[in-house]
Amino acid sequence: MNNLLIVGSVAFDAIETPFGKTDKILGGAGTFIGLSAANFDIKSNIISVIGGDFPEKHLKLLQNHGVDTSGIEIKKDEKTFFWSGKYRNDMNTRDTLVTELNVLENFDPKVSEEYQNADVLMLGNLSPTVQSSVIDQMKVRPKLIVMDTMNFWMDIMLSELKNTISKVDVLTINDEEARQLSGEYSLVVAAQKILKMGPKYLIIKKGEHGALLFDKDNTFFAPALPLKEVFDPTGAGDTFAGGFCGYLTCTNDFSFNNMKNGIIAGSALASFTVEKFGTERIENLDKEEFYERIQEFIDLVAFDYPTK
Amino acid sequence: MNNLLIVGSVAFDAIETPFGKTDKILGGAGTFIGLSAANFDIKSNIISVIGGDFPEKHLKLLQNHGVDTSGIEIKKDEKTFFWSGKYRNDMNTRDTLVTELNVLENFDPKVSEEYQNADVLMLGNLSPTVQSSVIDQMKVRPKLIVMDTMNFWMDIMLSELKNTISKVDVLTINDEEARQLSGEYSLVVAAQKILKMGPKYLIIKKGEHGALLFDKDNTFFAPALPLKEVFDPTGAGDTFAGGFCGYLTCTNDFSFNNMKNGIIAGSALASFTVEKFGTERIENLDKEEFYERIQEFIDLVAFDYPTK
Repeated sequence: MNNLLIVGSVAFDAIETPFGKTDKILGGAGTFIGLSAANFDIKSNIISVIGGDFPEKHLKLLQNHGVDTSGIEIKKDEKTFFWSGKYRNDMNTRDTLVTELNVLENFDPKVSEEYQNADVLMLGNLSPTVQSSVIDQMKVRPKLIVMDTMNFWMDIMLSELKNTISKVDVLTINDEEARQLSGEYSLVVAAQKILKMGPKYLIIKKGEHGALLFDKDNTFFAPALPLKEVFDPTGAGDTFAGGFCGYLTCTNDFSFNNMKNGIIAGSALASFTVEKFGTERIENLDKEEFYERIQEFIDLVAFDYPTK
Repeated sequence: MNNLLIVGSVAFDAIETPFGKTDKILGGAGTFIGLSAANFDIKSNIISVIGGDFPEKHLKLLQNHGVDTSGIEIKKDEKTFFWSGKYRNDMNTRDTLVTELNVLENFDPKVSEEYQNADVLMLGNLSPTVQSSVIDQMKVRPKLIVMDTMNFWMDIMLSELKNTISKVDVLTINDEEARQLSGEYSLVVAAQKILKMGPKYLIIKKGEHGALLFDKDNTFFAPALPLKEVFDPTGAGDTFAGGFCGYLTCTNDFSFNNMKNGIIAGSALASFTVEKFGTERIENLDKEEFYERIQEFIDLVAFDYPTK
């Protein structure tokens, strides 16, 4: 069974949407990635850091989904990372209300020996120097390194970010970030520029407009499922990344063609996440409904144009 | 050979984009629809009105593409409809600089007897009362009536618009218009509301984000081709509609499944239109490059997820 190593925040979120609001609930990139990847037959481990205020039940939840949490360091006298945000009516824009870095401020991830030869490494959105330090600790170069990041790091640590990007196989960013990173408006031109920075593959996430996968020669587009209601988009991007990595780790095939399936898997899982607050929906997902949703994606784009 | 009747403006456009600007060039919904539909083996006729200032060469161009222009009334002492617009840097928003209705102000389309039993009727964006009057003149109900419209008519003639919508089979509008017409933000919910207004099918055009086809039970999504450069988006929506109608008229199959192919055909043709100013690109299109582009659409979304 292949092994996925996840590095990412395990945290608290408080979310306000036009549909309601939550108190501090379970959140964090590492959490969503882990729960999403758990839908595949793999071994997965999270490297993260939490404070003494983090409830045992949340760790249990991850463990019950088969995620090894022994790499989550607990700093008893400190507090867990906390983010709070409010979504506007269109659900596409959100305002950050609170960001308390807490334990993340001095996060110095240690990759214990048993994780140092993971097959796949997924770097959730964190400081590029933290991401880089994890790559450098790997004893054997993973078969695939996937990295998420965001505009924040482009604003304040661009050269460190570019250094980290040069070491990974797959970079996942959204459309605005692709434009910022490349200085190009056209996503096709942006993609080719970014691929020259090192990664062999680029995934551009367009939210409700789907996702694009590029390599030097090929482009694949996966739609997002048109939904009656988007209840809470928090964690959708991380769920997508978790599904992508989980699928690839499980199938052990890192070709462009198989990455397409990884993107469909990730998109299907993300379409569940947005149906409820936080992790609520993907905590309770059975294989049957997952396969049904995959089938919805197949049906959504299938056509049979009579070519010559 | 099946017959497509097109009602729409034949006009002048003057366009400014970040890449350059044009003088008065050939434009109009009827023009783009006609040139696009001409890529299929059909008979097509345009009903429109032009002024004495309209150059013969533009009519010749349509005729050379096999479009019958005898339904285009020439008002010698009046001037042709003229629109001028300027695109912003993102190419998604544009400001109208000039709108001179001229001959369109009192456009009273007459459907001559030979056109009154067209197989397919395409109503380009015009006043809903004008569109309605054409439907009422048809001797035999066409196998398919497709109607385009825009937010302008929702603002000033909503009840007439709803009346016309209730008479057609396929309505094509963009995402913002679907939201305005339905009062719903979710496009899935909006679509179901709009379908209750009468049309059996709804196409929601999302520009660079593709297009959605809905009927009561099914949804199909077609991406737009990711392009290196969008040079001039003018006429893309009409080219799309022309390709859709041309394909369906030619294949004489008006099922949901065949409409998917119509949408792919329309999307492929629209992807050419935006490559140059006005009609320049689709005036000079050969079958080979059209089929190549269809293949690009097939490759763009194709995946083979291993289902149980």
